Amino acid sequence: MRIDLNCDMGESFGTYRIGGDDAKMLELVTSANVACGFHAGDPRIIDHTVGLAAKAGVAVGAHPSHHDLRGFGRRSIQVAPDEIEADVVYQVGAVAAFAAAHGVPLVHVKPHGALYNQAVNDASLSSALAKGVARVSRDLIFVGLATSATMRAAAEAEGLRFAGEAFADRVYNPDGTLQSRAIAGSVITDPDLAARQAVSIGADKSVTAHDGSRVALEAETLCLHGDNPTALDNARRVREALERNGVEVRSLLS
Amino acid sequence: MRIDLNCDMGESFGTYRIGGDDAKMLELVTSANVACGFHAGDPRIIDHTVGLAAKAGVAVGAHPSHHDLRGFGRRSIQVAPDEIEADVVYQVGAVAAFAAAHGVPLVHVKPHGALYNQAVNDASLSSALAKGVARVSRDLIFVGLATSATMRAAAEAEGLRFAGEAFADRVYNPDGTLQSRAIAGSVITDPDLAARQAVSIGADKSVTAHDGSRVALEAETLCLHGDNPTALDNARRVREALERNGVEVRSLLS
Amino acid sequence: MRIDLNCDMGESFGTYRIGGDDAKMLELVTSANVACGFHAGDPRIIDHTVGLAAKAGVAVGAHPSHHDLRGFGRRSIQVAPDEIEADVVYQVGAVAAFAAAHGVPLVHVKPHGALYNQAVNDASLSSALAKGVARVSRDLIFVGLATSATMRAAAEAEGLRFAGEAFADRVYNPDGTLQSRAIAGSVITDPDLAARQAVSIGADKSVTAHDGSRVALEAETLCLHGDNPTALDNARRVREALERNGVEVRSLLS
Amino acid sequence: MRIDLNCDMGESFGTYRIGGDDAKMLELVTSANVACGFHAGDPRIIDHTVGLAAKAGVAVGAHPSHHDLRGFGRRSIQVAPDEIEADVVYQVGAVAAFAAAHGVPLVHVKPHGALYNQAVNDASLSSALAKGVARVSRDLIFVGLATSATMRAAAEAEGLRFAGEAFADRVYNPDGTLQSRAIAGSVITDPDLAARQAVSIGADKSVTAHDGSRVALEAETLCLHGDNPTALDNARRVREALERNGVEVRSLLS
Repeated sequence: MRIDLNCDMGESFGTYRIGGDDAKMLELVTSANVACGFHAGDPRIIDHTVGLAAKAGVAVGAHPSHHDLRGFGRRSIQVAPDEIEADVVYQVGAVAAFAAAHGVPLVHVKPHGALYNQAVNDASLSSALAKGVARVSRDLIFVGLATSATMRAAAEAEGLRFAGEAFADRVYNPDGTLQSRAIAGSVITDPDLAARQAVSIGADKSVTAHDGSRVALEAETLCLHGDNPTALDNARRVREALERNGVEVRSLLS
Repeated sequence: MRIDLNCDMGESFGTYRIGGDDAKMLELVTSANVACGFHAGDPRIIDHTVGLAAKAGVAVGAHPSHHDLRGFGRRSIQVAPDEIEADVVYQVGAVAAFAAAHGVPLVHVKPHGALYNQAVNDASLSSALAKGVARVSRDLIFVGLATSATMRAAAEAEGLRFAGEAFADRVYNPDGTLQSRAIAGSVITDPDLAARQAVSIGADKSVTAHDGSRVALEAETLCLHGDNPTALDNARRVREALERNGVEVRSLLS
Repeated sequence: MRIDLNCDMGESFGTYRIGGDDAKMLELVTSANVACGFHAGDPRIIDHTVGLAAKAGVAVGAHPSHHDLRGFGRRSIQVAPDEIEADVVYQVGAVAAFAAAHGVPLVHVKPHGALYNQAVNDASLSSALAKGVARVSRDLIFVGLATSATMRAAAEAEGLRFAGEAFADRVYNPDGTLQSRAIAGSVITDPDLAARQAVSIGADKSVTAHDGSRVALEAETLCLHGDNPTALDNARRVREALERNGVEVRSLLS
Repeated sequence: MRIDLNCDMGESFGTYRIGGDDAKMLELVTSANVACGFHAGDPRIIDHTVGLAAKAGVAVGAHPSHHDLRGFGRRSIQVAPDEIEADVVYQVGAVAAFAAAHGVPLVHVKPHGALYNQAVNDASLSSALAKGVARVSRDLIFVGLATSATMRAAAEAEGLRFAGEAFADRVYNPDGTLQSRAIAGSVITDPDLAARQAVSIGADKSVTAHDGSRVALEAETLCLHGDNPTALDNARRVREALERNGVEVRSLLS
């Protein structure tokens, strides 16, 4: 039993700071999803964040988004598939250049926020995302929701490895999708609950939905959020709980 | 005797169109400077433009700028060197990904507008630009003003090949710098004058400044502008005049 | 029988030019919808456009949009109602300052593109728009689709005069909504057809939908588009046809 | 003896938070400079901030800037005067609409960051700023550096009341300009030092420059910064020290 731990990073912009302590979080996770400048991040922050991840030996991935700084990439936007595809090439290419400059490979691509959520049930959007990733490199791993058939199919159609993602700190719907952040209580802030959900995902390949039903899922990576107040504590307990229960924490490529 | 002909391209944005007929211009030039999305261009337009250049067999280069869509990159901005360096990595990396996707190498990088002009006499800015280019790849050619000692020195300090650029359709100052666009008549619109200046640069390694004095310059590439009404006609006459006078038009790498 | 003729204007941005000849169009219409800088326009262009309209004696209105320059405001975005409301106050306030500076009143507000289309059937969005307008001034006229019950109700709930709008050059669905621009042929480019539809709207208070059915509508203003190649010709024929058929062309306030 | 206390506010953007506790700061100052969306702030944040200020009975002013979110308006940009003028009308008009919506007048306009600093010695830029303000309303007070002859002259040339500003927490040069933030120690973080400088400005109409020399200045308003960690404590001590030393703290209009 093994699992990767990923976390969104580099979400500051200009003089604005967001997120917790990226350097500390990098001691706990095995994959970093680096914001690409469309919903968060700017070139200097990408440079800094990729440098931190490289130094920590954490796998670097790109975290492309809708072009929506004001909405932090969390607002659904109807964008034509060819525009999404080009946006992905652009953002992933930019972050890949920083990875190369820091002497590390770009390992994975995980869409951000609304772009991710819209793609979960949208074959055309999933396909545009996968095409964009594949145009940069077929060696990149496409990270998407473990229970999304459209994302998995799109990645495979482009010859990309798909890594299913699950969430230790998000409440699940019975159909395997995530409960909307708009609903109160959809983000789990109790570290014990998050740790228990992580073990359930890593060891039992399933999660308990908000109605008590069990949802089966094959997840290769577990997302930890860095932007809530208890982020580091959550991450530490999740990692310890996984290891205590015999789930090895390893990056996707190792 | 040989020279490269370069032209700025892909300067549209969203639904906005600018510049002449890129496809036609690509029949005449040997290098395309592709806008990277900071002063012009967006991912879909970069994709299209790189594709056109690749198909035409024209060398693809990146044309990074200040982040200034509203000013089309023509306004001087005081930006810290580390920010310039990161901006260059970002923009060049993004365009490089499109070049790779179209199966062609990224050949050169030429800074745009105010960024170019500010660097001409600014060693620190030139160094930041060269460092950004070198961090993406030491195989990239740095294109800068042929008469700029700071740009040439910065490129060489980073182990980059420097390609001096001259202008067929811009009026020169006696010190080898370009007369500001703010001065009326600084852009040569008469195709015959532009062609004559091109031959002077390519065959005689010199140009006549606005005061009638001769300025010596070693230029490997000649810039043609695509955004004035007579652009195509200018380009055609320049190319014919060069060839008629024994100056071979060839890309920087060939 | 009377009707107002309105046209979107000031849609350039920075060095980018879009739209036809605003000055010529202002000789034909009675209301100008001025882009507010979110999907098009910038302060200098707003200043210029409002100045042109004031000089021509054409009623000045604000044309607020989603914050989406890249998509020209034509992409649906899910934005929270309180954000829409604030966006409207901001944009309308900015254009109102230019109107005052040119010594003319701001007469109306017409939402642009996707914001308009999303509101047609969305009571919450319509209400946010109307609240934003009313917070600037209850003397402003809210221009919306003549057949939209939600827009009309929202305006009236805020104590705003509602002016129903119809389109001479757009194809109608049988339910009174506009056929999507994504469908080929949804924009009428034949000036005779547009003129005939205008007369039908102005004199017969109805329009023929794409399936041949008649749709009744109470329109106080007719939208003419300035961004297609035959815009001026269209506008001229529409105006002549209206006057020939006894429909007086007058602004909303006169 | 009397003086106004002003503070920059509403500097958050989207999900990004910056600055201290605006609500608490509003208990201590008499004028709020509200960011207008160009370097910071967005419509929802402007709405919220103006609402807070109105509720606290603090005078509302607009704080226009270069269009430079990434640089927080602190980077010098060479912008044409007519563009600056239009940018000011736009930003001031937008904030004025929110002030009206909250039932309070817009009292003053204070340029932000680089725009302010560039204008201190630039008559053409100062004139563009004053023209922009005057075009919105001649009743607005133009707030600028007390020791800037160009700002004062420009305001008076447009018939605007000029209110000279001094800084309790910034180090002065002997010529009355502010020491650049780029120099370490240029922002005074010791509340006692700031309070002493405030009293010197309010009661003695002078300030001690970094070389120990005395600079005379006629200041009607004192700027307190909200974005350093000790902001509230600084503000409290400044206010107490002023009142203890017989300088009444009153807004510009009262």
